[in-house]
Amino acid sequence: MTTEYDVVVVGAGILGLATAYHIKRENPDKEVLVVEKRSAAGQGNTAKSAAMFRCFFYSNINLLLTSSTVDFYQHLQEELNVDLKIRWTGYLWLFSREKYEKIRPVLAEMSKMGLEYKIYETEELENTIGIKTCFEGDEEAKLMGLEEAHVGIFIPKAGSLDVDALVNFYASKFVEMGGKIQFSTEVKSLIVEPEHPLGIPGEPYFWQNPIVRGIHTNNGSIRAKTTVLAAGAWIPTLLDQLGIECYIKPKKRQIFCVKASTEQLRKLLYAKDFGPEGCIPFTILPKPSVYFKPAIEEEAFWISYGDEFPRAFLLEEEPQPEENFYEYGIYQVLVKYFPQFMGQKPYSAFAGLYAINTLDGQPLIFKENGLIVVGGASGSGIMKADAIGRIAAALYREEKYAELFGGKKFRVSDLGLKKRRITPEKFII
Amino acid sequence: MTTEYDVVVVGAGILGLATAYHIKRENPDKEVLVVEKRSAAGQGNTAKSAAMFRCFFYSNINLLLTSSTVDFYQHLQEELNVDLKIRWTGYLWLFSREKYEKIRPVLAEMSKMGLEYKIYETEELENTIGIKTCFEGDEEAKLMGLEEAHVGIFIPKAGSLDVDALVNFYASKFVEMGGKIQFSTEVKSLIVEPEHPLGIPGEPYFWQNPIVRGIHTNNGSIRAKTTVLAAGAWIPTLLDQLGIECYIKPKKRQIFCVKASTEQLRKLLYAKDFGPEGCIPFTILPKPSVYFKPAIEEEAFWISYGDEFPRAFLLEEEPQPEENFYEYGIYQVLVKYFPQFMGQKPYSAFAGLYAINTLDGQPLIFKENGLIVVGGASGSGIMKADAIGRIAAALYREEKYAELFGGKKFRVSDLGLKKRRITPEKFII
Repeated sequence: MTTEYDVVVVGAGILGLATAYHIKRENPDKEVLVVEKRSAAGQGNTAKSAAMFRCFFYSNINLLLTSSTVDFYQHLQEELNVDLKIRWTGYLWLFSREKYEKIRPVLAEMSKMGLEYKIYETEELENTIGIKTCFEGDEEAKLMGLEEAHVGIFIPKAGSLDVDALVNFYASKFVEMGGKIQFSTEVKSLIVEPEHPLGIPGEPYFWQNPIVRGIHTNNGSIRAKTTVLAAGAWIPTLLDQLGIECYIKPKKRQIFCVKASTEQLRKLLYAKDFGPEGCIPFTILPKPSVYFKPAIEEEAFWISYGDEFPRAFLLEEEPQPEENFYEYGIYQVLVKYFPQFMGQKPYSAFAGLYAINTLDGQPLIFKENGLIVVGGASGSGIMKADAIGRIAAALYREEKYAELFGGKKFRVSDLGLKKRRITPEKFII
Repeated sequence: MTTEYDVVVVGAGILGLATAYHIKRENPDKEVLVVEKRSAAGQGNTAKSAAMFRCFFYSNINLLLTSSTVDFYQHLQEELNVDLKIRWTGYLWLFSREKYEKIRPVLAEMSKMGLEYKIYETEELENTIGIKTCFEGDEEAKLMGLEEAHVGIFIPKAGSLDVDALVNFYASKFVEMGGKIQFSTEVKSLIVEPEHPLGIPGEPYFWQNPIVRGIHTNNGSIRAKTTVLAAGAWIPTLLDQLGIECYIKPKKRQIFCVKASTEQLRKLLYAKDFGPEGCIPFTILPKPSVYFKPAIEEEAFWISYGDEFPRAFLLEEEPQPEENFYEYGIYQVLVKYFPQFMGQKPYSAFAGLYAINTLDGQPLIFKENGLIVVGGASGSGIMKADAIGRIAAALYREEKYAELFGGKKFRVSDLGLKKRRITPEKFII
């Protein structure tokens, strides 16, 4: 307990790294340390992402966070030659006619905001991707409550990137600027002390104005003037110890990888008529909203579904994918729309934890008792990471506004708890 | 698993019992079972309460819940001869001049709503209860951030009751009507099944419309058409297993009992000039808001403080009071205002868990996937129990409005999650 850092950031996932990077960039004289329990950066739930992004949201906050972040990634790739392997595959959202009619006014508003999309009518969908758009006479589909796919909404400003490359950018630049990363260091609890220590047994007591002063880890205690908690799904466990509510809950998400091993599936994978990548977009079925990503580099589809009730809020170090979840869950739905997948089994699968903000699904960036909390991105952390890092850095500097990449201002308190001000999202997978 | 109840209520605390009572009363033909892990009713955190009530709130919802509940208790005692040992001690809220000036407009509004209170000026306070109202020259008090007590607000419609008697009323009447209570039965998890079971391994899957169908306990499974979760601080653990967010967190609260063993303390305890009981009211200090209850029947004070950060959200079966929390926490604050307590130590102490609703501190009554959740009363469960029971019973019957005691209507969805509509409280201990 000899040194005291200016800032210690807990977690070298994408949000912790982006935050550490921007704090160090804006405050080069400050000593900033990132601690990470794994042996390398971005190896936790950051590595379990499908690594998709889209700049198409109804909520102005979601839109601002993603657009400025993706613009920054594009800037890195195109102007700074950081190869993030961005693929502009686009997103294809499938709706029943009824749902589409309901969502039309929202789309019209989004169009006015300058967001681009293209409509695909039923026949076009059938022709381009061979999707089944009518379940008439299919008793099973009815029993399963499947909604038919009548309309497709294609969103061009969306795609995928290479998360490892992104992690590597933030981590290496942070270290180049003089930041430190300490691996294999697991935070057990936070140091809490009275503002003015008196040496009373068991202090701090409530009248002593207690504040966070660093971390207790498996490698000893590390003192810091400011502690930043960016530990994703582990945030609530550490905050519960201090009675701080953050509304974050962990939930398992699974991805199943299926090869395009037949002529039909390759035809589906390399569907033309969409974006510049010459492949099917990231595609979201109507209901239940099973979705898949075109994983061109491995000639495969990554298939997933975000199940709610009764999927537990459960913190696991190594969450495992469940074969039955594919076989009896996802697959049963998928083949009803895309018979091309009939008989296909995954050659690979993995699972990670979303850190879900159960209040509204949008990120949480707040300061309480000397502690900054950055998390709850609810599965959208990668596509918002740069903006989140800049906002957290502004909070660290006690600035009212953050400047996002591209120059737009963002009111820091909008993502806080006390003066939170967000527009509910109407486009959710 | 032979029988199926119409309703199984988890928890024989005050909220579970009030809910079971009103469901059975309104639906005499339904088979209603209460299960409780302890060997008798009201032995969990219900028994750890200070058993105070007040009908003085800014939030119209808080006011309606408490007023109708206390009116019902008064009706029980005065008209039905149920001896609840109600004592109208009143509440005495102490404020610094500054805080009082801030709160004056709120009080004026409350006065217009018909709420009664009486102001005690500094000198009156000094004379009636011998409180120290000036910390000038007291460096310690300054360091501790104590606010001076300049103004007292006395609320007459407030007091204490005998929780055991209340628990006994609900439990015995429920059983008289044909309800059953099964003790020593601990719920391990909830039964979740597909709406239409198909016998698929690991069902229900997400496309099967899963619903709650009863409980798994240490004494086997119990099926029910409707399950009501009223398990207080244990609610979030059971809901986490199903991925249902309820925003409830457990937090320890401690009560220290100090005898009025000196002439000065007896003078304080039996202070005149307040309510009809001829004793000091339940008294709340300015800041930190240490508070105490006059426990006349044992000639004592029950002293407490609701500490926030860094008090953990921690679920414990038998939470223990902490001697140091009295000695270095509460006592240090208390003697600054009331030197009468100098040198006094507690002869008894106990601790319980609040089930805090971290959204807004008001009760949660909602239905999701066949499950009714009743909880989160945040320390005000006893003073709101009857109204909460009636609202939960209305939710069970799928009625839009509940009729509270006295005839007022209450919109059931106002305490739900989806259409929650509450007025934030401005009078909080």
